[in-house]
Amino acid sequence: MSELNQDPAIILVAPQMGENIGAAARAMHNFALSDLRIVRPRDGWPNPAAVPMAASADFILEEAQLFGETSESISDLHYVVATTARRRGMIKPELTPREAVQEMRRKQAEGLKTGILFGGERSGLDNEDVTLADAILSVPTNPDFRSINLAQAVLLIGYEWFISAPAVTERDAPALEGRAAPASKHDILVLMEHLERELDRVNFFYPEEKRDSMIRNLRNFWARADLREQDIRTLHGVIVALAGEKTRAISGEGEDT
Amino acid sequence: MSELNQDPAIILVAPQMGENIGAAARAMHNFALSDLRIVRPRDGWPNPAAVPMAASADFILEEAQLFGETSESISDLHYVVATTARRRGMIKPELTPREAVQEMRRKQAEGLKTGILFGGERSGLDNEDVTLADAILSVPTNPDFRSINLAQAVLLIGYEWFISAPAVTERDAPALEGRAAPASKHDILVLMEHLERELDRVNFFYPEEKRDSMIRNLRNFWARADLREQDIRTLHGVIVALAGEKTRAISGEGEDT
Repeated sequence: MSELNQDPAIILVAPQMGENIGAAARAMHNFALSDLRIVRPRDGWPNPAAVPMAASADFILEEAQLFGETSESISDLHYVVATTARRRGMIKPELTPREAVQEMRRKQAEGLKTGILFGGERSGLDNEDVTLADAILSVPTNPDFRSINLAQAVLLIGYEWFISAPAVTERDAPALEGRAAPASKHDILVLMEHLERELDRVNFFYPEEKRDSMIRNLRNFWARADLREQDIRTLHGVIVALAGEKTRAISGEGEDT
Repeated sequence: MSELNQDPAIILVAPQMGENIGAAARAMHNFALSDLRIVRPRDGWPNPAAVPMAASADFILEEAQLFGETSESISDLHYVVATTARRRGMIKPELTPREAVQEMRRKQAEGLKTGILFGGERSGLDNEDVTLADAILSVPTNPDFRSINLAQAVLLIGYEWFISAPAVTERDAPALEGRAAPASKHDILVLMEHLERELDRVNFFYPEEKRDSMIRNLRNFWARADLREQDIRTLHGVIVALAGEKTRAISGEGEDT
């Protein structure tokens, strides 16, 4: 089913209570979503506490995919939105639910797969997860009372997705941009890791305490850079050429001695 | 407070579970609604089961008004919408949540008071209640799974109300994207030239007849990559780190000879 399903994946990252996972599945079914992915659920998976809350959406729980890492959970997707309640100081588009679903409808019309990341009940998504996303989605709320339950967030965004159905697909789909298909998250991750490996080799991430933020800045850049499959190949080549030549140069010198 | 409050009243008619009344109050607070009215609650009022679910919206429960009849609960209102999941065969406008809040905003702008009727968990509003309303509101859902919880219905309609506020539209328009200003075309060109110079040094653009299209592909990528000033600095650093290390290695070898 999920092979043909081009509706957004709902990705729960480190959810705590099984009841909320069940309620999220139910909310998904209310709005005809079915691709549920769960990353590191606190209480393991499957979780019997999820079932009663899912009501007749239990089939969504049964088909849910389990992942150890957020990056793995999105590897087949092309456009990912991270739901957060607070600003992260990252350079990413910040979208309302309505804007986010419109963007996802456009991606869907191009044949691309999308997904929405939801953080756990206590503290939401961590910065590393948000970094993987193309855009940030915040539900507008009363500034005096922002706390929305996990399943409620899924409900609101599922609702926006559902009611956005007919109009956008036809109206706003931009033409495919030539031969180059958008890169998958997997391809982008492999590229990032390639670059970071080479940069590690030349001690680029120095001093050590700055390492995480330097990597985050780079990853934020790649995430929004609209990479195409062709770019991925080219940029791997660029990295190999720049870094690999160094290796050849050194070993070339070595051969002379 | 409620005398001056021109936001819609949320009217729960014959609600059954206190927990759902509490959750409805919480959802109201999320979207800055506070005028809660309760008609013939099954378990009496006040109901201690409502309090924990209301979280910090308990003040809404405390100020809630209790009524014996739906008609009494709406007597001070000018425009009332009835939420229903199914057609009633009545000649009334049938509105989506979005259309309903727009109509209510228009009434509000005229200084009129509005309200939304929600039926109890088991069977919703009865026809007599619906008859009192000016219009019918149905939340669009998956036709295979229409069942939405009472508090979820309040949440969705509260959300639509909240985001339909003119003030909100401005405030929650996606903010300027953070500290990093977009890079100037000049900065981008300097970056491209830096990269191309280093790539030339390692004979990346080979064979010669492919050189122009390879450069064009790279430049197309940088042009749409949404580069910020910070990215420009980082990427210069990346190029220097990858290519410069090579130069240092070579010149280091050179010094030895």
